Amino acid sequence: MSTAAGPSATEADRLARVALNVVGEPGLPSMARALAVTDAATVLDRLLDADGGGLQQDLAARLAEVDPESELERAERLGIRFVVPGDAEWPESLDDLGRAPELFGRGGVPVGLWVRGSRPLADVVAKSVAVVGARSCTTYGADVAAEIAAELAREGWSVISGAAFGIDQAAHRGALAAAGDTVAVLACGADRAYPQSHRSLIDRIAEEGAVVSETPLGGAPMRIRFLARNRLIAAFGQGTVVVEAAIRSGALNTATWSLGMGRVLMGVPGPVTSAPSQGVHQMIRNKDALLVTRGAEVLEAVAPVGQHALPLLSAEPTARDRCTFEEQQVLDAVPLARAAGAERIARTAGLSLETVGDCLVRLAEHGLVESSGDRWRLGGDARATE
Amino acid sequence: MSTAAGPSATEADRLARVALNVVGEPGLPSMARALAVTDAATVLDRLLDADGGGLQQDLAARLAEVDPESELERAERLGIRFVVPGDAEWPESLDDLGRAPELFGRGGVPVGLWVRGSRPLADVVAKSVAVVGARSCTTYGADVAAEIAAELAREGWSVISGAAFGIDQAAHRGALAAAGDTVAVLACGADRAYPQSHRSLIDRIAEEGAVVSETPLGGAPMRIRFLARNRLIAAFGQGTVVVEAAIRSGALNTATWSLGMGRVLMGVPGPVTSAPSQGVHQMIRNKDALLVTRGAEVLEAVAPVGQHALPLLSAEPTARDRCTFEEQQVLDAVPLARAAGAERIARTAGLSLETVGDCLVRLAEHGLVESSGDRWRLGGDARATE
Repeated sequence: MSTAAGPSATEADRLARVALNVVGEPGLPSMARALAVTDAATVLDRLLDADGGGLQQDLAARLAEVDPESELERAERLGIRFVVPGDAEWPESLDDLGRAPELFGRGGVPVGLWVRGSRPLADVVAKSVAVVGARSCTTYGADVAAEIAAELAREGWSVISGAAFGIDQAAHRGALAAAGDTVAVLACGADRAYPQSHRSLIDRIAEEGAVVSETPLGGAPMRIRFLARNRLIAAFGQGTVVVEAAIRSGALNTATWSLGMGRVLMGVPGPVTSAPSQGVHQMIRNKDALLVTRGAEVLEAVAPVGQHALPLLSAEPTARDRCTFEEQQVLDAVPLARAAGAERIARTAGLSLETVGDCLVRLAEHGLVESSGDRWRLGGDARATE
Repeated sequence: MSTAAGPSATEADRLARVALNVVGEPGLPSMARALAVTDAATVLDRLLDADGGGLQQDLAARLAEVDPESELERAERLGIRFVVPGDAEWPESLDDLGRAPELFGRGGVPVGLWVRGSRPLADVVAKSVAVVGARSCTTYGADVAAEIAAELAREGWSVISGAAFGIDQAAHRGALAAAGDTVAVLACGADRAYPQSHRSLIDRIAEEGAVVSETPLGGAPMRIRFLARNRLIAAFGQGTVVVEAAIRSGALNTATWSLGMGRVLMGVPGPVTSAPSQGVHQMIRNKDALLVTRGAEVLEAVAPVGQHALPLLSAEPTARDRCTFEEQQVLDAVPLARAAGAERIARTAGLSLETVGDCLVRLAEHGLVESSGDRWRLGGDARATE
């Protein structure tokens, strides 16, 4: 499947959306509301008519400066395309951003996405999980994020993150190290790198997976764009894993989005003495997030039921667990190494010789005691669970 | 209130219970069943009649050797008393062990308890929480257990534990360090110390709180007695906190008891890379246990509603959080240090000068921007949340 396959949005619609994207801010609520009820060309026409149709007048003033066709050409030279709803590669998961009215007010479905990377975006994010967390993470957090991302990647799942310092970059690197797919969703333009020191990481993500942004080309990473960006990170995949997040952090903003969209929210615990784990612990305490400790547990939570079900960790009951109370009393009285006679065992256990004799026979059947002549000591199975 | 105050079990009943305690094992199911339907003297009579009334014949044989009165005298010389149901100091919480039939089969209400310590047992455990965990704990686990125990003690709550190596002893020491009450429930006789190297710790617990055992005087700590002991640890207080527990551990046995009795089960998380935290993480994942990170959270869970309610940790919304989308756009465009004119801010924000002017006035009202002449920069409130 290539980017050219399948139905595609009309070029008129794409150009109108480029214009709206360039003049509007990512996540502009009035834009999401306008596009939810009418098509992009109509929204654009209304803006040009200086009526605005509910949109800011400021946008209309800037429209005159925008040339969508040359913007697309400029993008193409940079290896970037503008993906819009209706394109075959448009990820359906993003449409969930328009499902609930309260989501419009906080961003809604993006007008379009600037994408760097050769594979169809919908394919890359079809099976995906966001792994996000603190910029100022601990080495523990970075190690766990990388390990979980690698486990997801090995099972064919893409790792979505924000290319930031700390947990984000560890997650991307973990996926790349496992030769898996990863998607960086940026708050700056898809042609830029933020932080700048992650330029080569972001370039590599574009080669192996995809770099995505709602911010127009050349756009700077501003606070409001980070918040809008977080909703996309939460929307792309089936769930979000938060690895370390202080009480007030961007990762928790992504977590809130994840919850609001009905995605699976997961959190990796850490030492209670570690500030970067506090936000995660709070999410788990509040029952907002599922506690996860490894990739297999993430997959169990996000994959279709049964596909990645984990065996219960609680150990199988041992032969010792299945003993009756009397048998346990006898077992407690049988020496570990130097065998003892049944009479001495009966004295220690405070049971009759007859009871002890019966118990010893049954215990021997289960490998819990072994006899040597008329003397008894613990068998291998009992020693193993001692 | 002294141990002598209030109604008390009859001496005949106490003596019968001493005899039954000495011949039976702690948590002997047939004993619990017998005592649930008739009084101790009758159970004893049936045993002496060699009918047994459903009890093991082995018990009857041993009864001849028991002299309850001299056993009580021996205890008194050791500063130990035998507390039975009906005594004013009998903790009502223990009666919960007889509430569900499935609990009889696993021990039921104890026949009586050997108690070292000067204060009435019911008083010491009235407000109490068990803090238990791995013997082979990490220093992290020990530190957290001690800190949580100290927080509970400072708020007037007793800390119940098993005096074992690791988390248990850290919990006892934490409570003692905070000059609080703590109760050690032993698997050996109340006159003994197990582990032996905890002799002075156990002596100190007896002085400050209480040392309790269901095992007759002189009894050795056997495996079956640890399991019976765990049900008492879970039963005394309002809840159980598990700090580190491997997947298969005695602490999880106590946790199971806690759940089965409808007590509040809590777990302290740790690094997912730490084996001693795995059992705790599993309990939290399964929604069996509430994640707790400090004493205040434990108290919020076990105290009567509202008495220790915590403020929500999520930070109050800041003035920035309450901004409209446009105001946030403007705020993003206002310089941090070198003030800029409204026109430049409007250009950066991509908004009209009129819109920006309105926004700046509102932002200034909230302390988010400050003006110097006709130029603007971020105000203190915006810098604080930057």
